[in-house]
Amino acid sequence: MDETLPSSAEHASGIALDVLVVFLPSGLRGRFAAGTPVLAAARKLGVDIDSICGGRGICGRCQIAVSDGDFPKFGIRSDGDHLSSWGELEDRYIERRTLGKGRRLSCAAKLMGDAVIDVPAESQLHKQIVRKEAESRSVEIDRVVRLYYLDMTAPSLSDQRSDVTRLRDAMAAQWNLDAVSVDPRLLAELPAQLRDADWCVTVAVHEGTDMIALWAGFHDRAYGLAVDIGTTTIAAHLTDLETGEVVAAAGVMNPQIRFGEDLISRISFIQQNPGSLDELTAEVRRAIDDLAHETVAAIGAEVTDIVDMTVVGNPIMHHIFIGIDPLQLGRTPFPLVVEDAVTVLAGDLGLAAVNPAARVYLLPCIAGHVGADTAGVILAEAPHKRDEMTLLVDVGTNAEIVFGNKDRLLACSSPTGPAFEGAQISCGQRAALGAIERVRIDPKTLMPRFRVIGSDLWSDDQQFKAATAEFGVTGICGSGIIEAVAEMFLVGLVNRTGLVDGERFPDCAWLEADEEVYSYRLHDGPPHILISQTDVRAIQLAKAALYAGARLLMDMLGVQTADRIVLAGAFGSYIDPKHAMVLGMIPDSPIEHVHAVGNAAGTGARIALLSGSARREIEALVRRVEKVETAADPGFQKSFVAAMSVPHAKHDFPNIGRSMPMPTNTPRSGRAKKLPDG
Amino acid sequence: MDETLPSSAEHASGIALDVLVVFLPSGLRGRFAAGTPVLAAARKLGVDIDSICGGRGICGRCQIAVSDGDFPKFGIRSDGDHLSSWGELEDRYIERRTLGKGRRLSCAAKLMGDAVIDVPAESQLHKQIVRKEAESRSVEIDRVVRLYYLDMTAPSLSDQRSDVTRLRDAMAAQWNLDAVSVDPRLLAELPAQLRDADWCVTVAVHEGTDMIALWAGFHDRAYGLAVDIGTTTIAAHLTDLETGEVVAAAGVMNPQIRFGEDLISRISFIQQNPGSLDELTAEVRRAIDDLAHETVAAIGAEVTDIVDMTVVGNPIMHHIFIGIDPLQLGRTPFPLVVEDAVTVLAGDLGLAAVNPAARVYLLPCIAGHVGADTAGVILAEAPHKRDEMTLLVDVGTNAEIVFGNKDRLLACSSPTGPAFEGAQISCGQRAALGAIERVRIDPKTLMPRFRVIGSDLWSDDQQFKAATAEFGVTGICGSGIIEAVAEMFLVGLVNRTGLVDGERFPDCAWLEADEEVYSYRLHDGPPHILISQTDVRAIQLAKAALYAGARLLMDMLGVQTADRIVLAGAFGSYIDPKHAMVLGMIPDSPIEHVHAVGNAAGTGARIALLSGSARREIEALVRRVEKVETAADPGFQKSFVAAMSVPHAKHDFPNIGRSMPMPTNTPRSGRAKKLPDG
Repeated sequence: MDETLPSSAEHASGIALDVLVVFLPSGLRGRFAAGTPVLAAARKLGVDIDSICGGRGICGRCQIAVSDGDFPKFGIRSDGDHLSSWGELEDRYIERRTLGKGRRLSCAAKLMGDAVIDVPAESQLHKQIVRKEAESRSVEIDRVVRLYYLDMTAPSLSDQRSDVTRLRDAMAAQWNLDAVSVDPRLLAELPAQLRDADWCVTVAVHEGTDMIALWAGFHDRAYGLAVDIGTTTIAAHLTDLETGEVVAAAGVMNPQIRFGEDLISRISFIQQNPGSLDELTAEVRRAIDDLAHETVAAIGAEVTDIVDMTVVGNPIMHHIFIGIDPLQLGRTPFPLVVEDAVTVLAGDLGLAAVNPAARVYLLPCIAGHVGADTAGVILAEAPHKRDEMTLLVDVGTNAEIVFGNKDRLLACSSPTGPAFEGAQISCGQRAALGAIERVRIDPKTLMPRFRVIGSDLWSDDQQFKAATAEFGVTGICGSGIIEAVAEMFLVGLVNRTGLVDGERFPDCAWLEADEEVYSYRLHDGPPHILISQTDVRAIQLAKAALYAGARLLMDMLGVQTADRIVLAGAFGSYIDPKHAMVLGMIPDSPIEHVHAVGNAAGTGARIALLSGSARREIEALVRRVEKVETAADPGFQKSFVAAMSVPHAKHDFPNIGRSMPMPTNTPRSGRAKKLPDG
Repeated sequence: MDETLPSSAEHASGIALDVLVVFLPSGLRGRFAAGTPVLAAARKLGVDIDSICGGRGICGRCQIAVSDGDFPKFGIRSDGDHLSSWGELEDRYIERRTLGKGRRLSCAAKLMGDAVIDVPAESQLHKQIVRKEAESRSVEIDRVVRLYYLDMTAPSLSDQRSDVTRLRDAMAAQWNLDAVSVDPRLLAELPAQLRDADWCVTVAVHEGTDMIALWAGFHDRAYGLAVDIGTTTIAAHLTDLETGEVVAAAGVMNPQIRFGEDLISRISFIQQNPGSLDELTAEVRRAIDDLAHETVAAIGAEVTDIVDMTVVGNPIMHHIFIGIDPLQLGRTPFPLVVEDAVTVLAGDLGLAAVNPAARVYLLPCIAGHVGADTAGVILAEAPHKRDEMTLLVDVGTNAEIVFGNKDRLLACSSPTGPAFEGAQISCGQRAALGAIERVRIDPKTLMPRFRVIGSDLWSDDQQFKAATAEFGVTGICGSGIIEAVAEMFLVGLVNRTGLVDGERFPDCAWLEADEEVYSYRLHDGPPHILISQTDVRAIQLAKAALYAGARLLMDMLGVQTADRIVLAGAFGSYIDPKHAMVLGMIPDSPIEHVHAVGNAAGTGARIALLSGSARREIEALVRRVEKVETAADPGFQKSFVAAMSVPHAKHDFPNIGRSMPMPTNTPRSGRAKKLPDG
């Protein structure tokens, strides 16, 4: 670098500073001696330009373009010709890679006259990642792990510095990073690696302090894995740490399912089978290792290229992943063992498909039933950065609820039970091939129509039977049961008290009675699929718990209506918000203020992967979040009982008509291509 | 602690400060309200008093005594009665432990009148360890790992803090340590441990920042293992981290010997047998693990009580222990892979007999052949803290030489070869049972006498044959060959050029000739033990290299005579310094300025175990040490050639007569009970 970039000493030495340069979009400007490389001028002015190779014309990260024309605002006439002509460095570069039209390498091009330099987004070190989801925050990359190219001389009798000192000195001289220590795990391979590479290497540095990986020569691939450990599924996103892009994704069933479908049954299993915790821990780690392998293979990279990893999950998944017995999380007062962010080494977790010195970062937990997954949702949705009052709802076996804005943020969990996941429902099942996931009931004929996972067709379509022949109709999953109950209410089959009102429709062919207790038949089978009175009661209990939790937090802040309701996770993705509101699961709000954001916990993990400041942000924020214990609050019980009716007050959904349009959100049958959501 | 010690708020609240207290030996004094516990007063004044239990009357570390009488210097009349009378806390204490005569617990005794309080050495947190060796520095304990008793409340619905937060909060509230993080390795066991202990635990904290171990209830045992990995032997000292005392020691042959007797042959073995490095690394770690087991069993403690470990060794032993291929250390320009101090986790090294979260600290290396062992010697002998010019010499296969004082310190290694260790000598062998280790030659008769390892008797003693019958006379070890050649020179059998001067003693019965090349017979055998002309030449070469190295450093500082010569390691312990000087191995100096300090490298490891500031001291110092490369220096070759004669100038040992007294230092036959030295 020293040879490429003239030092600032030139400026002090009386050389005429006769060239004016303005960098956009920052607007930073300054005068330099003619012949100053653009990158050197940018560095001097503090312009945010990326580089891995340190100005050697190798990496191409420092590309810029010159704007032509008059810029009276800056008092400049800029022209592409005001840069030095195309030189050897750029020639060598385009032999290997391409440069876009009008692009120059800022380390090669020299300022020969006044110029307005445009630094495109992809050349900025702290580039913004604009997320596709509407309403989502954009994220500024603040790399936790960064690559640096180093060029060293070999030891000699007159320079016997150790290999490690040589690396440290090069980091200091070539990158101004003074206190980088080399992870002890690198030491064994280090001497051979440095010599095989002829002392030119690329290193990965974690948080500017720990050298965690090393490659021969120039290397510009560094990936991170963002992992969301759901109770049912595990999702992994392989992310390019340099660009912030997701380059591969994969999902898998949580193998712990064989120890218990839901969280409580897994805790029981561990309690009843001493020593089994290790097995559950090993299973989830192995599944994640497989996902790392799968994603890295998908893009043809090496496992050593995965140099960072972030993990979110509910407290029980989080604890088991670390190897902590989650027993206490299953019994009052539900204390976490650790709520701080935890960092462990990939090698210590036995992950073989991740660089062993990679630091695995688990987002902090918030409370006994409000985990790192909720921390991820908060990071993704940033209620703490808004004036509006946001209600975040993430439903699994427990609903995790966050409410507030930049001033105060409250969190609680609410014991919804597993009904929303299709469990403890007479014909319920997990969301899987053949499960009913959407339901419509004709208000006039009371005839049901439905759709199952694995097909886009409705059940009254002539092709339906053929399209679903391979798997058939197997049961009803969480979103299906919610839609079914909501539709039954909308057409009057269920009244406000939750009674399946068979007396009102004596001629309905889809009602079955057993001693005056009615069930509604969705599908003639086999198997018969019925919505029983008991099923309606289970959904009533679950939705009342969810509603009461949200209400409790809102009441604590004295707020009647949320300005923004965010539905996270599978719940939000596969349930029409209108049905949720019809049932009274969530407080009424203009429907345009309700957003389903998909796997926001996983998004939070991706944000933490790309940004050290995001990690600091969520670590500080979770301390500030006020934890509300629903079990201890008398107001919760009161709200809970009041919320049992469907919905608990008619004016709760003034904006929703009684005729439901066709759902417009992504059908779950597209799921095989998408990622499973927690 | 809050209940026991009144806060300083009292002093601000206008309560009369009517009692004067003076603490000795510090002389710190102040006025306090009557009824203030002595420990609280001491803390307020910054008096150095130890405590594990935090003033709960459990640990007994805070014992003090009151001086009776008038102290005009302090304006005090002090009396034992000026403390509150013996109370419940002290009663409970002496039910379990004893208190010395006149001793009180400073956490229990309250100031009721003026008092002069004596803080005995063992009650001081930063107590001095005075070493037995004459001339040695005393060391102030500055605990790296410290124990803290914590008393917490159980979680409840109104206090749902996580287990980790509870620990951190207790550290902050009870010990003013704010930023203690809990090692992830503790997390798995943590919830059960805390609950089994009913929330009263003792924790070990490393460097004031990392909680690395936890015990139920009050626990006052914390040990560290100081390890010296020699090429031939490995020595371990188990040290009480609270008192600084060595509580057990053990040694073992370095099991790597089966891969090669000396360092170079081990490097060759690794080079010729790909994959064998892992085996050598595993062998040394296993041997150390066994030593940890052996020492901890010797005192009936638990392996988890070993919470710290320090390691010294030459660069090759150091690198292999970490798992680094030492190949580069065997070929020019001999660069180290790492010279900084390295810290690794005991668990990562596979040590089962050490607490897995214990940090293993390897002292820094200095240069390619000047290792962590020399850093240990420097730490133990502290030449950098003296005005006098000190010459430190540690001889193994290479001599590691340090010269200088507080202003400058130079270090080099000198290629003595293995002759001083008995290798490449015709009848040479490693120091082991039956090896000749001491030699005397009668100046008149030229008759040899000797002593072997395993017996205190000289060979002319009538009991000698019987005493050595079990093992016999097997060969000659390093110290034996040196004494033999020195004695041969003293009686004229070897002349100044190194020639075995057979012509001069035609009638000598102990000379054998082979074509006019003479050998001197020490023992009639079997086996015959001869000192050949080639043996004398080998010793000449080795001593010339050693001398030239020392001379080079002295010349670089323009110093003719060392004020103090320190012989470290086996070399220093088993060779009479006078013989060394007679041979011209070390520069001439008044004999009283020459000190054999035994295993100083191991002592350095023990110092580093007890003191964090000693670690910082040596880390900073090794950067300041000027590394001199003998191979690159033309002056070295010149000195080397000049030093070939025996001794190279007669005036080099004006203080030494020609008649050698009986050696007075510890006989090596006492070795079995002592620790092996490197």
